[in-house]
Amino acid sequence: MVFFAVIGHQAKNDGTFSLNDLPSSGGRMDLLCRCVQASLFLSHGIREDASCLLILAGGPGAVKTVRFEGANVRSLSPDERSSASFIKKALEIPAGSLFRDVTPGVSVRKAGLETLLGEHRFGVLDEHGTDIRNVQVDELPEGFLLSDHQNFTPDEELLIKDLPRYSLGPQVVHADHAIVLLYNEIDRRRSGWN
Amino acid sequence: MVFFAVIGHQAKNDGTFSLNDLPSSGGRMDLLCRCVQASLFLSHGIREDASCLLILAGGPGAVKTVRFEGANVRSLSPDERSSASFIKKALEIPAGSLFRDVTPGVSVRKAGLETLLGEHRFGVLDEHGTDIRNVQVDELPEGFLLSDHQNFTPDEELLIKDLPRYSLGPQVVHADHAIVLLYNEIDRRRSGWN
Repeated sequence: MVFFAVIGHQAKNDGTFSLNDLPSSGGRMDLLCRCVQASLFLSHGIREDASCLLILAGGPGAVKTVRFEGANVRSLSPDERSSASFIKKALEIPAGSLFRDVTPGVSVRKAGLETLLGEHRFGVLDEHGTDIRNVQVDELPEGFLLSDHQNFTPDEELLIKDLPRYSLGPQVVHADHAIVLLYNEIDRRRSGWN
Repeated sequence: MVFFAVIGHQAKNDGTFSLNDLPSSGGRMDLLCRCVQASLFLSHGIREDASCLLILAGGPGAVKTVRFEGANVRSLSPDERSSASFIKKALEIPAGSLFRDVTPGVSVRKAGLETLLGEHRFGVLDEHGTDIRNVQVDELPEGFLLSDHQNFTPDEELLIKDLPRYSLGPQVVHADHAIVLLYNEIDRRRSGWN
């Protein structure tokens, strides 16, 4: 399994955002939707070993995490609106502390970064980190933690201060682009490409 | 300059598609919008040397090309709907054989692949091509030609049969993801990363 977790600092978590205005009403939900697309989609298929976890921290109320699992998801299309409609559904049902299925492959719980960090071994993207191309395949973490258009907060930085840090190149790119670059690196290692 | 040209085989070119249904009413316009986003956007900025050319071949009528230029574009956001609304505007004005500005950095003309191939030196993505990581920076073409969710047609294959072919990794990825991988490779070469 490969886990991609993305913190949406302003991402609304009550399902009231408009599908016609994801950036503003959803708190940059468009970016999170593209992260789902980058995590799960190949040209003609779904990555069955991918799990994309969206940490929606923009309120109202407690943080929620919506999880998309490539192995089980059905009827998801690569456009932003499709992912957004699944997220909306997930946010409209009562959430508890454990993941609850909304539709096959999509689930939701009331928990955020700290819980997630206790469950998987994450690496963090950082422009000053180790170049990902110089990391051996068996040294790669189980998952990667990314931030939306905002930096990690001081509280988040404290939680992730001991995690390994990786860079992807000389330019700082959008979170969904970072996922594309990371998966390419993983694909290459798995298949014996350089 | 770096040119990314994407052929949208079913992409509607009369501007009547719905912004609420880009995949179906637009003929996979969602994918073309993500190609614009992948070509032009950095985390906190626009790639000023990028030009994204969308070849809209899904009718009605003659093929049109919509061009986004990073250096001049204004008020473009990274979400699909934003690019789509610019494309819609471009398709609503009369188009001639030369590019005509619609808004700053966005222009349209009535021409397709053959015209474009006469203007820039393109490379083509092909899973059996040379691994992009093994290509020297001065051997890279000016631009890259990609296809949407469909393969190049026999007529297109005939036009591009002599172009260099590159592969990006062991998995066949969406056109927008391919652009992300290509730009990362270009960024690395320019900055002396390996």
